[in-house]
Amino acid sequence: MRPSGRPADALRAVSLERGVAKHAEGSCLVRFGDTHVLCTASVEEKPPAWLRGSGKGWVTAEYGMLPRATGDRMKREAASGRQSGRTLEIQRLIGRSLRAVVDLVHLGEKQITVDCDVIQADGGTRTASVTGAFIAVYDCIAWMKSRNMVGPKPIRDHIAAVSVGIYRGTPVLDLDYAEDSEAETDANFVMTGSGGIVEIQGTAEGRPFDEAQLTAMLALARRGIGELVALQKQVIL
Amino acid sequence: MRPSGRPADALRAVSLERGVAKHAEGSCLVRFGDTHVLCTASVEEKPPAWLRGSGKGWVTAEYGMLPRATGDRMKREAASGRQSGRTLEIQRLIGRSLRAVVDLVHLGEKQITVDCDVIQADGGTRTASVTGAFIAVYDCIAWMKSRNMVGPKPIRDHIAAVSVGIYRGTPVLDLDYAEDSEAETDANFVMTGSGGIVEIQGTAEGRPFDEAQLTAMLALARRGIGELVALQKQVIL
Amino acid sequence: MRPSGRPADALRAVSLERGVAKHAEGSCLVRFGDTHVLCTASVEEKPPAWLRGSGKGWVTAEYGMLPRATGDRMKREAASGRQSGRTLEIQRLIGRSLRAVVDLVHLGEKQITVDCDVIQADGGTRTASVTGAFIAVYDCIAWMKSRNMVGPKPIRDHIAAVSVGIYRGTPVLDLDYAEDSEAETDANFVMTGSGGIVEIQGTAEGRPFDEAQLTAMLALARRGIGELVALQKQVIL
Amino acid sequence: MRPSGRPADALRAVSLERGVAKHAEGSCLVRFGDTHVLCTASVEEKPPAWLRGSGKGWVTAEYGMLPRATGDRMKREAASGRQSGRTLEIQRLIGRSLRAVVDLVHLGEKQITVDCDVIQADGGTRTASVTGAFIAVYDCIAWMKSRNMVGPKPIRDHIAAVSVGIYRGTPVLDLDYAEDSEAETDANFVMTGSGGIVEIQGTAEGRPFDEAQLTAMLALARRGIGELVALQKQVIL
Amino acid sequence: MRPSGRPADALRAVSLERGVAKHAEGSCLVRFGDTHVLCTASVEEKPPAWLRGSGKGWVTAEYGMLPRATGDRMKREAASGRQSGRTLEIQRLIGRSLRAVVDLVHLGEKQITVDCDVIQADGGTRTASVTGAFIAVYDCIAWMKSRNMVGPKPIRDHIAAVSVGIYRGTPVLDLDYAEDSEAETDANFVMTGSGGIVEIQGTAEGRPFDEAQLTAMLALARRGIGELVALQKQVIL
Amino acid sequence: MRPSGRPADALRAVSLERGVAKHAEGSCLVRFGDTHVLCTASVEEKPPAWLRGSGKGWVTAEYGMLPRATGDRMKREAASGRQSGRTLEIQRLIGRSLRAVVDLVHLGEKQITVDCDVIQADGGTRTASVTGAFIAVYDCIAWMKSRNMVGPKPIRDHIAAVSVGIYRGTPVLDLDYAEDSEAETDANFVMTGSGGIVEIQGTAEGRPFDEAQLTAMLALARRGIGELVALQKQVIL
Repeated sequence: MRPSGRPADALRAVSLERGVAKHAEGSCLVRFGDTHVLCTASVEEKPPAWLRGSGKGWVTAEYGMLPRATGDRMKREAASGRQSGRTLEIQRLIGRSLRAVVDLVHLGEKQITVDCDVIQADGGTRTASVTGAFIAVYDCIAWMKSRNMVGPKPIRDHIAAVSVGIYRGTPVLDLDYAEDSEAETDANFVMTGSGGIVEIQGTAEGRPFDEAQLTAMLALARRGIGELVALQKQVIL
Repeated sequence: MRPSGRPADALRAVSLERGVAKHAEGSCLVRFGDTHVLCTASVEEKPPAWLRGSGKGWVTAEYGMLPRATGDRMKREAASGRQSGRTLEIQRLIGRSLRAVVDLVHLGEKQITVDCDVIQADGGTRTASVTGAFIAVYDCIAWMKSRNMVGPKPIRDHIAAVSVGIYRGTPVLDLDYAEDSEAETDANFVMTGSGGIVEIQGTAEGRPFDEAQLTAMLALARRGIGELVALQKQVIL
Repeated sequence: MRPSGRPADALRAVSLERGVAKHAEGSCLVRFGDTHVLCTASVEEKPPAWLRGSGKGWVTAEYGMLPRATGDRMKREAASGRQSGRTLEIQRLIGRSLRAVVDLVHLGEKQITVDCDVIQADGGTRTASVTGAFIAVYDCIAWMKSRNMVGPKPIRDHIAAVSVGIYRGTPVLDLDYAEDSEAETDANFVMTGSGGIVEIQGTAEGRPFDEAQLTAMLALARRGIGELVALQKQVIL
Repeated sequence: MRPSGRPADALRAVSLERGVAKHAEGSCLVRFGDTHVLCTASVEEKPPAWLRGSGKGWVTAEYGMLPRATGDRMKREAASGRQSGRTLEIQRLIGRSLRAVVDLVHLGEKQITVDCDVIQADGGTRTASVTGAFIAVYDCIAWMKSRNMVGPKPIRDHIAAVSVGIYRGTPVLDLDYAEDSEAETDANFVMTGSGGIVEIQGTAEGRPFDEAQLTAMLALARRGIGELVALQKQVIL
Repeated sequence: MRPSGRPADALRAVSLERGVAKHAEGSCLVRFGDTHVLCTASVEEKPPAWLRGSGKGWVTAEYGMLPRATGDRMKREAASGRQSGRTLEIQRLIGRSLRAVVDLVHLGEKQITVDCDVIQADGGTRTASVTGAFIAVYDCIAWMKSRNMVGPKPIRDHIAAVSVGIYRGTPVLDLDYAEDSEAETDANFVMTGSGGIVEIQGTAEGRPFDEAQLTAMLALARRGIGELVALQKQVIL
Repeated sequence: MRPSGRPADALRAVSLERGVAKHAEGSCLVRFGDTHVLCTASVEEKPPAWLRGSGKGWVTAEYGMLPRATGDRMKREAASGRQSGRTLEIQRLIGRSLRAVVDLVHLGEKQITVDCDVIQADGGTRTASVTGAFIAVYDCIAWMKSRNMVGPKPIRDHIAAVSVGIYRGTPVLDLDYAEDSEAETDANFVMTGSGGIVEIQGTAEGRPFDEAQLTAMLALARRGIGELVALQKQVIL
């Protein structure tokens, strides 16, 4: 039995609330249980300097946590003057994941910056961020479409992410913080709506894992991401 | 007629939502119209180094804005590596305001850090922050009381804040962003529940103001802060 | 009786020494008793980027203290790698105050940067800075006029500043450091030569203050600033 | 045919040169073809502060590239004042990988810091770093053993890493820079000597990949890491 | 004929004004013509961490220039967030020079920090700083002596410095800015009162120099430093 | 007898290995005994901004040490976020030395950046850097010549450097770390192939030195640099 009492293949209660930010071109408050992330998408009329003249745009992401999103208050990164390695790693992952489903040529010479700010954390903030950021980008591009700012099909597919872990030898889906801190292995999967794998990050925290466990984790992730994509589709109907 | 259509002496719709952050010892989501600030209060068992052995505690504040809290996306301070002068100025004001009503001896050798993070901005974020931070600190100290961590009366009074401006020659209460950007004078008042003035910051953006206008602004502020304190009292009943 | 022995409404000995810096377009060494601030004004041929093409210029200020300007040596901000919140707050105040009396259209697309460096501190460094910076800017603009670099009337009025405090219940003018550290309330006033209020910053350090005390402080400030403006006029005759 | 002309399952010429740094307790210059990384291991008598009194030690890593290790000169991170997200991500990976095979209790309250500095880069610097760092740590712990500084069995297993990619649809082992920049998918695998998986990082740069491709990449990685571990064993005989 | 019109072996008008800073334990305003440097010496009761328990003290220096000390305004180092290489180089030189004549054992476990802040620059700021800093340290140690804080003879000798250059082929003493910017060689000499050489820094800006020129520059420096030491003696009589 | 057992006028074993870096336009691994520095020269098509349109190019240098190049591991400058004063001082010296022999007009509007990275340190890293950097620049300019990127004679002379010290009263050439840490005086000389002096930096660490000692050190330096230049000539034949 896992600490949360959930079956091994059950997601937490997930919700995707659109249009929560008055000013942003697209926004989504994503909740995976007690993990809450506010995702906003902001358009800039120009791509980054290295893409000017290329006909292509760019999608990038920034990630942050409010200092008391966590059980113990963390130092504010703005005050300490640098973003941690963890922060940089996560925002690079979110950006790569979104670019996997956005057609940068159809986007044209624009830049979309997605901000994923963790309002409350209980494990899985990076996978919740990817899942919610997709909705923010989707709405942002809809906003751009209605202004004829983009090509015909700038979004190729859905993208969503989930964590899977091995807890006391058993693969379990969507770890909360209590589960994550005791898991032997922690893995994050990012997949498209059609089931292609975009990113795998798997780390043995204790004992190394084997191929069978990897296969089992991948199956759980596929199931969880399937549900997340279904929810995304419901929300943007 | 002011842009918001409100009478000169009317606050925006204000709400104070307690207990919104799962992990924090005290928290409050304060809304002044479309300005939304999440205030959390975090206890540390030790005061800052310069107070060790003094028998006194400390209350301090940090302030931040999510990058897309505003109409145009602002650079993330954590990414640029430094907090702006505006940020530092505001968080110093919030800290001073809270310390004006907390008895640092009764608090004992502890530190309370209040984080005020602007989720959405529409003018008056610093005054909303002070008003909401009071509730977060109140609940934090209640949490400490229930664990016998503080002296008998660590909170001496309420504290709340409001902005007042001179818009086309007329003093008006609680400016939203549209009003603020056109006001000739912008002033922030911080007062206690019993009506004492704790802080005045008044700046002529265009034409200088005179004593009569200062008096009129003070009267409006007193009225607005009276309503805010009444609301605080309702909320913590 | 206040620690300095001065009557409640008496300024310290104030002097404004012009032309003290060989290289600067305008300069003034201002002394309020033992508080000595060197103010220099430097012209740049271009305004900041966001004003290019607007026809308008800009006046900005930077503030610093020599490490041993104070009783205890302070860390050098250049060595610690960041300016403190207090420094940023003061230099923003000086800049706003000067812009209140400079006509940015008549200034044209130029920038004046005023550096206020505290050589010795004994309370009231920010108000001394504003008062001396006016002379530096005045001389800088005279230098520009003699080269036909500005419009007909780039300076609209005088600007000066003074601190007022409540010391043992009594409002007193122009606090030195010993008085400031014991005052219940500390307020800074910036006014024009014609008596308009440009900035009020009042903070209760101990007990809150009331409207009568605010009025009394304003009256003292008006008197003190009147004397300072008279002295400025004498100096630039 | 891949650009390097190697068969799909062939490593580049790999060498591990021990004892190359006069001062370090352990060192290894690892070469994967034209990728050359100098790995040194340095002992500190104390673990990091958060492990004091725990009886446990720590192994950590730092990573850097000489500015002209690459085809175009990169900005020196010491000069720009911050380490890039890529650098932080890589050094976190190296540290985690080494800790997977070091018994921190047998290590005792010491810290080993491994520095991996890329002298010349041609793809695969992070996997070369892990492979070479193992030798540096091994020799460092041998040095400590000979001084009775560690418990009986501080190293549990070998650790090595290799990159695998999908190049024009075919999985290929150990990508050099030319291959890496055209690969559709780039994955890094870290495994122990006994074949346990410690870390997988797989990223689709172009088209997403599927489970069959993941399985094929894992098989190639297992083969390559087997050869690398065999080479490590030869070197430390 | 050199630009200043001075004979090749003539110093500018030099003055050393003691006791100019109200708060510092020792201070000196040194003027070499239009180069004006304020030197203050501050005592700390503890030496730096690496000297605790050694019985020895430390003397260190920091150097800065006011932004408009120079012909063109320079960026404020506190604002740009880092001290330039030039600044660090100069403050290291000043510290080394002072330590050459202070007996760190007789000083005991204290630290003296000398701040040399250039109020106005016209060439030779580092050599003026060394020369004035000696007086500030001398007075600081006298202050310490009168409080029995130091051993019997903490100062072993005088220390002073001067620049020498080769201007159109001729060695000249004590270059001002106009001379310095055209000199083929620029050298700084630091010597003790008894004529020992403590530091030579000579740089060919244009053509390399030869041994005869070095000898001639040394002779000029010896003469100039002799005069500076005589002036120091006069001042501290 | 000096610690190294070398005669007073003997260099350590010196070698200059060209073409060691695959990517750089010029490179040299210089060894002075156990001091090993990798020097690379990188061409940029544009000079720094302040030289655009001048017809002149620039040569600059950066310097770094691998963290475990030294007996005790040093903090990585990229991680601490700033380069030390020592680093900045050394890289300024290397740049000045190289510019003394490169004709910036013949170089044309290009920039050469030399990176000197200390792989292993045993005293004299800055003088080894200058000596090796010359070879890297030489080869870089040869590379440019073969592409018709430079004027007819961009290199005017050789440049090399050596340290000299006074060890127990005797001048000795080319100090290693053990000698350097006990020397009373430490001096670095940079000279051209034709014997002109480009830079002297001499510092008394203990007792001051006199003119006779300076002359003796200069003679030793001249001898040592003569040998280094002869070696450079051999290498670039």
